[in-house]
Amino acid sequence: MELKEIGEFGFIERFAPDFKALLSGEVLGIGDDCAVLPMDETSDLLVTTDMLIEDIHFLKDKISAWQLGYKSVAVNLSDIAAMGGTPLGTFLSIAVPPGIDVEYLDEFMKGYHDISEKYATPLYGGDTTKSVKHLAINVCAIGKCPKGKAKLRRNAQSGDLICVTGNLGDSAGGLQAMLNKMETSADIEHLLRRHHLPEPQIKEGQVLLNFSGVHAMMDISDGIASDLVHILKASNKTARIDLEKLPLSEPLKRICATQNWSPDELAVGGGEDYELLFTVASEQLDELQNIFSKQTGKMVHIIGEIKLGEPEIQWHKNGQKVVLSKAGFNHFQE
Amino acid sequence: MELKEIGEFGFIERFAPDFKALLSGEVLGIGDDCAVLPMDETSDLLVTTDMLIEDIHFLKDKISAWQLGYKSVAVNLSDIAAMGGTPLGTFLSIAVPPGIDVEYLDEFMKGYHDISEKYATPLYGGDTTKSVKHLAINVCAIGKCPKGKAKLRRNAQSGDLICVTGNLGDSAGGLQAMLNKMETSADIEHLLRRHHLPEPQIKEGQVLLNFSGVHAMMDISDGIASDLVHILKASNKTARIDLEKLPLSEPLKRICATQNWSPDELAVGGGEDYELLFTVASEQLDELQNIFSKQTGKMVHIIGEIKLGEPEIQWHKNGQKVVLSKAGFNHFQE
Repeated sequence: MELKEIGEFGFIERFAPDFKALLSGEVLGIGDDCAVLPMDETSDLLVTTDMLIEDIHFLKDKISAWQLGYKSVAVNLSDIAAMGGTPLGTFLSIAVPPGIDVEYLDEFMKGYHDISEKYATPLYGGDTTKSVKHLAINVCAIGKCPKGKAKLRRNAQSGDLICVTGNLGDSAGGLQAMLNKMETSADIEHLLRRHHLPEPQIKEGQVLLNFSGVHAMMDISDGIASDLVHILKASNKTARIDLEKLPLSEPLKRICATQNWSPDELAVGGGEDYELLFTVASEQLDELQNIFSKQTGKMVHIIGEIKLGEPEIQWHKNGQKVVLSKAGFNHFQE
Repeated sequence: MELKEIGEFGFIERFAPDFKALLSGEVLGIGDDCAVLPMDETSDLLVTTDMLIEDIHFLKDKISAWQLGYKSVAVNLSDIAAMGGTPLGTFLSIAVPPGIDVEYLDEFMKGYHDISEKYATPLYGGDTTKSVKHLAINVCAIGKCPKGKAKLRRNAQSGDLICVTGNLGDSAGGLQAMLNKMETSADIEHLLRRHHLPEPQIKEGQVLLNFSGVHAMMDISDGIASDLVHILKASNKTARIDLEKLPLSEPLKRICATQNWSPDELAVGGGEDYELLFTVASEQLDELQNIFSKQTGKMVHIIGEIKLGEPEIQWHKNGQKVVLSKAGFNHFQE
């Protein structure tokens, strides 16, 4: 049987139960943005790891070495942010094929260093080796959060509002612009920057950590059409999403209009936004909006609601039920 | 400039100082078998990571999927052992090319699980993704050891005896036998097992941790000709190694005799032994031998001595100085 028949998550389900049996009670293992381990009397340790493979996750001639170094760290710190954690540092494994010169690697490490400095996360160690043909990068990030307080995927509750911390679809728009070799403009530059240089929402996650009403949280790496289902499955709940509420940037709206792209599809399916997706009890929303905007200068955007029911997303657009297929959103046929 | 001109360690030296500046005082970062981080009042956290790339570190038709899963964990636990630590668990990133089926991955995960169960080290999380052509595996292992007690590379002292915990060269002999497609025999099977299924010296490392006279320690992954130099550079000392003292297995001696291989060269340059290499104050040796053999059923083998001087290895064979070149060991020309 080929892997694509069951997919990444089907594969994980084949071995995860055997390993769960090895876990002690106080550890959260496979299945969230980070593993959560007891660290000391007041803190839990967070650990996450992400692999980036050339020609799968990036094209070497489409992203600069500096950007690639920056992004390799950013996507891992985003997983720490998704728990409401504080990042501590990272480990880098890099497998280098023939034909990549030291100057390229220097630039990569400069990008890696610049984001490490920005978030005060030293590179603690790693592994450097050869590869046959493709650059392979693995970063493991560690962080911490107050004991027992990490925001998990499994705690969404019926009646919670579903929120995101920023615009969706920009990164996917940037990827499309890049693959279509579109002529550069200020709007395209904005989308490309969002694709190449995602910013981990560390501060945002830490603010959300302090609200008991924030029940479930994760980062948006694959797009909410896929990511939100993880929260729904872990929490055994259903969700209603109102597509007209998805926050979209002005550059994305303009490019979508000229290119005849569907902003809704980019926003829910494109992925790599690295904003935070969370659910919050409605009675805490006003206080949260107030403090969140004061402390981060940003707004949270309400895009839907958690309800009792099967773990699936009910999509709505301007009050009408719609369905998402490979061909995009269509009106629901009853 | 191509990477091979400066090598892995030359590359690391280019960026390590910039990252060292980000470290807080109580953290040991780049440059040992593990990073050492403060964990709680009594323990330090150990973290290590190792990448295995198909056709660089292993040939898919020469090692079974089960063995590969086992070895992926073993080489990381070996780094925890090298600090005298207790492993806690691991994280696995795996990039799977087309053509590897789910049954292969199931066997890989079974080997991964079996060693995880043996050493009570759960898989805590990871990342599963596609690759273009080669299987890429990254394991990150975490462990702990009593605060401030981790055995580092930098503490070797003049007069220390240099010791190893077991036979050297078996793994390199197994690799040669495999590459030369030698006919199988009990001796060859022994060497192949040592190559495919290294055993992390966890218990051995923990016993050595308790001896204050054990000053420097690391695991043998590249062979002592290369590994010992790391201890010498970190400690700013020189070493004398007596080749006739290298512990060699009977199977290796027999195969070397029939194949006309140099056991000395396999023992110092072959690598992947995953025994521990350490230096110990001579006055603690008797007590150490006594307790080590009682608690592990094994002996430590003395192979040389640490001295004041440049960080390099002086090789001796039966009292005669010899030099190690690409062509092997030769009598020293003065």
